[in-house]
Amino acid sequence: MTNHTKPALRSYLAATKNFASGTRTPRQFLEQSLELYDTWEPRIGAFVCTNLPAARAAAERSTERWRAGKPRSRIDGMPVGIKDIIETVDMPTEMGSPLFSGWRSAKDAASVRALRDAGAVIVGKTVTTEFAASEPRGTRNPWNLEHTPGGSSSGSAASVAVGIVSAALGTQVIGSTIRPASYCGCFGFKPSVNALNREGSHDYQSQSCTGILGASLADLWQVAHEIVARVGGDAGTPGLQGPDELPLPRKPRSLAVLETGGWDAVRVGAKQRFEECVARLKSTGVEVRTRHTDNNVAALEAELVNAAELSHRCNGWEARWFLRSMRDRDSGSLSRTLLERAEKYEDLTLDQHRTDLRERARIRAVHAELASICDAAITLSAPGAAPQGLASTGNPEFAVPASLLGVPALSLPLFEVDHMPLGLQVVGYFDRDADAFAIASWLESSVGRTASALRGAAQS
Amino acid sequence: MTNHTKPALRSYLAATKNFASGTRTPRQFLEQSLELYDTWEPRIGAFVCTNLPAARAAAERSTERWRAGKPRSRIDGMPVGIKDIIETVDMPTEMGSPLFSGWRSAKDAASVRALRDAGAVIVGKTVTTEFAASEPRGTRNPWNLEHTPGGSSSGSAASVAVGIVSAALGTQVIGSTIRPASYCGCFGFKPSVNALNREGSHDYQSQSCTGILGASLADLWQVAHEIVARVGGDAGTPGLQGPDELPLPRKPRSLAVLETGGWDAVRVGAKQRFEECVARLKSTGVEVRTRHTDNNVAALEAELVNAAELSHRCNGWEARWFLRSMRDRDSGSLSRTLLERAEKYEDLTLDQHRTDLRERARIRAVHAELASICDAAITLSAPGAAPQGLASTGNPEFAVPASLLGVPALSLPLFEVDHMPLGLQVVGYFDRDADAFAIASWLESSVGRTASALRGAAQS
Repeated sequence: MTNHTKPALRSYLAATKNFASGTRTPRQFLEQSLELYDTWEPRIGAFVCTNLPAARAAAERSTERWRAGKPRSRIDGMPVGIKDIIETVDMPTEMGSPLFSGWRSAKDAASVRALRDAGAVIVGKTVTTEFAASEPRGTRNPWNLEHTPGGSSSGSAASVAVGIVSAALGTQVIGSTIRPASYCGCFGFKPSVNALNREGSHDYQSQSCTGILGASLADLWQVAHEIVARVGGDAGTPGLQGPDELPLPRKPRSLAVLETGGWDAVRVGAKQRFEECVARLKSTGVEVRTRHTDNNVAALEAELVNAAELSHRCNGWEARWFLRSMRDRDSGSLSRTLLERAEKYEDLTLDQHRTDLRERARIRAVHAELASICDAAITLSAPGAAPQGLASTGNPEFAVPASLLGVPALSLPLFEVDHMPLGLQVVGYFDRDADAFAIASWLESSVGRTASALRGAAQS
Repeated sequence: MTNHTKPALRSYLAATKNFASGTRTPRQFLEQSLELYDTWEPRIGAFVCTNLPAARAAAERSTERWRAGKPRSRIDGMPVGIKDIIETVDMPTEMGSPLFSGWRSAKDAASVRALRDAGAVIVGKTVTTEFAASEPRGTRNPWNLEHTPGGSSSGSAASVAVGIVSAALGTQVIGSTIRPASYCGCFGFKPSVNALNREGSHDYQSQSCTGILGASLADLWQVAHEIVARVGGDAGTPGLQGPDELPLPRKPRSLAVLETGGWDAVRVGAKQRFEECVARLKSTGVEVRTRHTDNNVAALEAELVNAAELSHRCNGWEARWFLRSMRDRDSGSLSRTLLERAEKYEDLTLDQHRTDLRERARIRAVHAELASICDAAITLSAPGAAPQGLASTGNPEFAVPASLLGVPALSLPLFEVDHMPLGLQVVGYFDRDADAFAIASWLESSVGRTASALRGAAQS
């Protein structure tokens, strides 16, 4: 099986410029989406199900609104995908598990309802690993069908990467948005914890977030903004803070480089791309602090050594009741990986969990202190491009720090290794998601150009 | 229609004393529950559905464990009811709405799973008002079938009051646990916000809590404790803090009296009972501070004047996406009350909601300061006994302060007015639920005796 078309991102925000004049319409935009769906879906398997009649009708109504000069929002008419652990009233929510085959929630999740109210066109439900954990469900990487798209938001990343949708909802509790964004070559946003309302989504762990995969930073920001404007963050929190449109690019004064969690495992080409990026940053006058040159960064790196273990233990306690419930229903319908995970945390006590929560809070405070000397941190989104094989969704380790810290993270598809995409990760500070976007915008326009040049060089 | 039997609470914790010796068994306890079910259920309509074969089998297994000297917990074998907005894998969850008729969640809620793991016997799903809001669903007050049982945890309170179950899960976001406890004459506990894991329950608003209706303070505490020990509080929070068994009674040094929110509406008999109670407290040497005698109490009372409005507005924003989703499905299936409520908050903005959250936080801080001079606050659980009629679930205003403040509240069935029960409410401090229980225990054993004597006098 070979690719006839190269994957290409399709920004909806860029397209809307022509909607007001009427030279293009949301309905036309959707029809192109559906052509791409016909081309790509048989190869990549990004969707669990679709509701195309409803999508076409929604795009038609959106077209009318743009024509009348009354779009509901900047994403009115945007084709979007919904990770299949997030509830939809018009489609089943199957959670990547046979235990939820055909299951219907009878409501829209808060984020889905917000998207509809903003005029977005829900194309379908995208493939998730089993209960958004590790077990893959067959989606392939559009850059190379023999490689994993990453997980757990596999279908969301793959469908955005080929332009079927301009954005898709994902989730992240360990690395489920940043990693597939990196592997599939799209933009990914994991917000500050609690910043987007998770009600009606099966991502209930304390460091879990609704994430977004998108065709550009502008698409990401706008989707996040339109959701939060309508349904807020998790109940009782202020929700995502920031302007009505993508924050303007801002050059950072100083950036920290994070090498935590398996920097040794970074593949040669990936390390090279990242080092070139750092060199380029320095050449533009950005101060770059690393564990080798800065005590505060070194202190944070030391705290993050066990980030993955601590994250898994927090999640393990928080998911235990659910996995027990599923195991009792039919343990034969659960993957071996999930059964082993359930087993692993079976004896955790509430006291141990409380200790873990305090430890996590302490590490978060160490990170927050870095804000006085670094505007953000950068690192790779993954130790390398998407590995070959569909049996594993790859190594999530590089996405763990932002998950544990509860801070915003963005993956920018700026690198290419072995003809596969790889993301530059920007890690911001809690509740300052807009600042992370501003810096990411600047990085895209400066480092991005370099990366493209390098990409050209690497391919020649 | 007349009552042949007087409602009577059946504490499970009191009964377990005989389980170790084998003179009584959980199975026998359940059979008595089911006899009461047969007697009462046709009159009070407390259940939406039951799973009696599963309950009998669970009681049988519990009996074996007690016999072997290995009960899973102090509530192993306790018959419990589950409010029908909380998900159960073996029974539908109908939310008091035709829109969820026959709907199944495919999992147990965290609290339900915890109860099963603790050995509790789930008897059935108890009647809730429509989506735990205002519209009643026919349950009657066992003390007088022409009177409301209160809401929204109507069936939970009524089923505990007549002894079918020793405890039942409820929820409270305005007054849905404290009020029905008061009206039905059982004990009620609304914990500190976030203290009991709400995952899998349709009470997702920021001041909502899983509450417990029970036959005694010991039953309440133990159920709460066994839940939190197994599934914690809401993800990321420490969960209910306190000892393994009911905290020992502790005489308060000083108590605040709260008259907020419609003290003028308090009926004569109710006011009399409460004043006698206060007099009795003073006679035992407890310092009692009121708005008339203490500036701090007066300041808090002033802050609480708009507690109901602020609470409703917070909930209104937080529930809007859901009500919109239901309205789109079939507005004809929603009550007029709910449609009006949805309409009322339709134009709220995120900025207004953020202002409301900050205002609530400010009021909470004012309350927290009271801790230095008062060990708890007391007030009535409702302005009077359950009013006649089934069309309304009564006035929730007295339960609002604890809901808005996010602090623990207990309703103790110590008063009687017009041959109907009425609760004394104890309002504690955030995350100090055990202290509230300790003081409530003391009040029950001292004021309680007085109240009984008064009750006798009033009836003669």
